[in-house]
Amino acid sequence: MRKPKIVILGAGYGGLLTTVRLQKLIGVNEADIILVNKNDYHYETTWLHEASAGTLHHDKVRYEINNVIDRSKVNFVQDTVVEIKKDEKKVILEKGEVEYDYLVIALGGEPETFGIKGLKEYAFGITSVNSSRQLREHIEYQFATYNMEEEKDETRLSIVVGGAGFTGIEFLGELTNRIPELCHEYDVDQGKVKITCVEAAPMVLPGFDPELVNYAVSQLQSKGVEFLIGTAIKEATPDGILVAKGDEEPWAIKAGTVVWAAGVRGNSIIEKSGFEAMRGRVKVQPDLRVPGFDDVFIIGDSSLIINEEINRPYPPTAQIAMQQGELTARNIAALIRNTPQLETFKFDNKGTVCSLGEDDAIGVVFGKKITGSKAAFMKKVVDNRALYMIGGAGLVMKKGKLNFF
Amino acid sequence: MRKPKIVILGAGYGGLLTTVRLQKLIGVNEADIILVNKNDYHYETTWLHEASAGTLHHDKVRYEINNVIDRSKVNFVQDTVVEIKKDEKKVILEKGEVEYDYLVIALGGEPETFGIKGLKEYAFGITSVNSSRQLREHIEYQFATYNMEEEKDETRLSIVVGGAGFTGIEFLGELTNRIPELCHEYDVDQGKVKITCVEAAPMVLPGFDPELVNYAVSQLQSKGVEFLIGTAIKEATPDGILVAKGDEEPWAIKAGTVVWAAGVRGNSIIEKSGFEAMRGRVKVQPDLRVPGFDDVFIIGDSSLIINEEINRPYPPTAQIAMQQGELTARNIAALIRNTPQLETFKFDNKGTVCSLGEDDAIGVVFGKKITGSKAAFMKKVVDNRALYMIGGAGLVMKKGKLNFF
Repeated sequence: MRKPKIVILGAGYGGLLTTVRLQKLIGVNEADIILVNKNDYHYETTWLHEASAGTLHHDKVRYEINNVIDRSKVNFVQDTVVEIKKDEKKVILEKGEVEYDYLVIALGGEPETFGIKGLKEYAFGITSVNSSRQLREHIEYQFATYNMEEEKDETRLSIVVGGAGFTGIEFLGELTNRIPELCHEYDVDQGKVKITCVEAAPMVLPGFDPELVNYAVSQLQSKGVEFLIGTAIKEATPDGILVAKGDEEPWAIKAGTVVWAAGVRGNSIIEKSGFEAMRGRVKVQPDLRVPGFDDVFIIGDSSLIINEEINRPYPPTAQIAMQQGELTARNIAALIRNTPQLETFKFDNKGTVCSLGEDDAIGVVFGKKITGSKAAFMKKVVDNRALYMIGGAGLVMKKGKLNFF
Repeated sequence: MRKPKIVILGAGYGGLLTTVRLQKLIGVNEADIILVNKNDYHYETTWLHEASAGTLHHDKVRYEINNVIDRSKVNFVQDTVVEIKKDEKKVILEKGEVEYDYLVIALGGEPETFGIKGLKEYAFGITSVNSSRQLREHIEYQFATYNMEEEKDETRLSIVVGGAGFTGIEFLGELTNRIPELCHEYDVDQGKVKITCVEAAPMVLPGFDPELVNYAVSQLQSKGVEFLIGTAIKEATPDGILVAKGDEEPWAIKAGTVVWAAGVRGNSIIEKSGFEAMRGRVKVQPDLRVPGFDDVFIIGDSSLIINEEINRPYPPTAQIAMQQGELTARNIAALIRNTPQLETFKFDNKGTVCSLGEDDAIGVVFGKKITGSKAAFMKKVVDNRALYMIGGAGLVMKKGKLNFF
C-alpha cells in the first residue's frame, strides 16, 4: 500500500511545530513527512528586533533545522516555493517539485507596504536573518561614516521607525540600548542621534492596555525617542521620509536609516496559487483547512481566524502559529487514520509581553499587568518556551535566554 | 625671562616621539611644550590595515595621548591645524591660534590620488581610525546585503585594492584571512568572493628583495588574490574601476569595494602655509630644519630626505619618523641651551617586515631575509617596539601584540 505524503512548507513557528509534533504522532510506516524550507535554519522571528539593533548576534536567533527534526522520519528539502498547484496536488519549487496528499502551508507573512512609494527601495525590514543583519550593518556604516566627512551630516545619525506596533516598539527598546554603544564605538556625540517613531494610527500598540502603553511610551521617550502619532508616512526617499497628518501638506524628516516595522500581510505565494485571500491571508475553517480543499492546511501569518469576542481577526503572532501547528499535526494524524471528526481551533491566550530592551518590558500574563524587570523576566520565559516546544530542554540550554538576572 | 615655546603639530609617530623625548630632556623651567593634535588619541598607522580588514578592533590600534605625555610638562591642545603663519611664528587652529618659538611639523601624509578621476569620491582609504572602520563596515555591509537581494549581485563580493606597495600588500594579507569569517558570518559561498590587486608599477613591493616578493605574491595568490601588475587605474566609478595597461583601451572591473592604498604625499597644510615642497614634502636640512626657517622642523611623511646610496628619497615610514622625532627633541634642547652645533640626521635602517596576515610575513632584519612565522614574529616585535619607544613597557603590556605563539 502506498504511504500518504505529508508536505509542510516553511520551518517557522507553525511549520516546524507541525513537523516535530507529527514526527512523534506518526509511525514511519504510516506516512512520509517532507519539510520544505528556503534556509537550512529556523529563526526566531520574535527575536529579530534584537539582531536588527545589534544587541543580539543573528546566530543566536537561529538554529539548524536538522538539529530538531528526526531525520529517520522527516525528509528535509532546502528549496524555495514558487507556486502551489492545488488542483494537481503538487508544489513547484525553484529546483524541483514535490507532490502531496496532505499539505501544510506555513510560509509566514510578508511586509505590507500599503503601496507607499519608495518603501520597498529605501526602507529596511525586520523580517528575516538576512534583513536584520543588513539593517544592523547599515546603521553601523552610518555611524562609521559620520566622522569621515568634513561636512558632518547629522541625518546619518537619524533613524526613523515606521510603525508603533509590536515590532516597532520592541525594536525601539533595543535600539535605544544600542545607541550609547554605537556612539562609544564610533566616537559620536550621543546628543546628535535622533530617533523618531512615526505611526499612522492614532495610538501606540493598538489593543494593548492603555496604562501599559503609557508606561512604554514614557520609557522610550526618556531614552530619546520622539513619537509622531496619527502621522502617516507618505513616501520614503533616499534622504528619509515624507510624512503628513491627515490631509495637511507633507513635510520631510531627513534620516540615514528608515525602518519599516508596520504591517504584515500573508505570503504572496497564497494569491499566486489562486487561494481566495485578503491581503494574502486565507480565512480557514475551524479545523484549519482551506474551504474547498480538504487536503490543505494553512497556519501562521497567512491564515486568518476571527476572534469572536471582538469580531476582528487575531493578529499574526508566534503564539497562535504554534498552537495552530500543534492542532494541525493532530488533525493530519486523524486524517491518515481515517478518524471521522477533526478537532477545531480555539486560541488559548497565554498573555503577551512586549519587550522594551534587555531589562524592561510591559505585558499581560495570566490576566495580570506587569512592567519593568518582572515583565522583562517573563519575556525571556516566553522566548524560551518557544524553543522548548520545538526542541525541548536541549534547545533551551543551547539557544535560550538564560541570563535572567 | 620669558620661556621659549615649543609647539609640536601632530601626535603621530614623529610628533609623539618628539614630545615624549622632549619632556624628558627639558626641565619645566626651560621651555613650554605644546602638543596639538586633531584627536585625543594616537593611532598606529602601520596597524591600520588590520583595523580596515576587521581582523583587529580599531580600539586596539589607538591609545589616549594623555596616557603617554607628562601633563605637568606638556600642554595638550585638541584642535585641527588650519595654517602655519611661518613669518608671524604662529599656527592658526580651527578653534584658536598658538604662537611658537620652535615649531615641529609632524602632521603626517595624505593619500596621493595622482588626479585619478573618482578616487576621492568612490575609493576607501587606510589612513586613519575613521577611514579604517568605515572601510571595515562598508565591506561588512556589502556581505550583509548580498543575500538580501533577489538578483544576487556578485560584484558586492568583489574587492579591488589599488596599490601593491606596503599598505596594499599588508591589507591583502589581513583581508584574505578575514574573508572566510565574513562568508561564515553572512552565509556567503567563498567561491563567489573576488579580490583583485591593481598596480600601475611593473612590480609588487618595489624596493623589496625579489625572492621575498615572489613569496608574498604566491602566498596571496594561493589565498585567492588576483594581481594585475603594470596596470593603471584610470577612473573609479560607483560600480568599480576602469583599468588599462599602457595606452590600451580601458576596461572595467566591477567591484562593490575599491580601496586606494597607493601613494602617500605630504600634508596639504605644508603647501597652504607657503613652504616649498614636492608633493607636500619639504626637503629638510640634515638637522631636519626647513631651509630658511631656523625655528621650524619638519619630520615624518611631510619631510623629504635623500638616500644617498641610491640618490632617491627615503619612503615615508614609521621607523624614519621616529628616528627623526628623537633627533628633533635633542636638537630643540640644544637650541634652547644655545649649543652652537646641531646633530645631523642619519637613517639607521633596522630592517623592514611586511605582514601577510596574522601568521605570515616577509622581511629583511639585520640584513637577513626571513619569511613565514619567523617573519610574523619579527613583525610583532617591530610593532611592539613602536609602543615601547613612546610609552615604555607599560604601553606594550596594555596595547602590545603579545600573542606570539
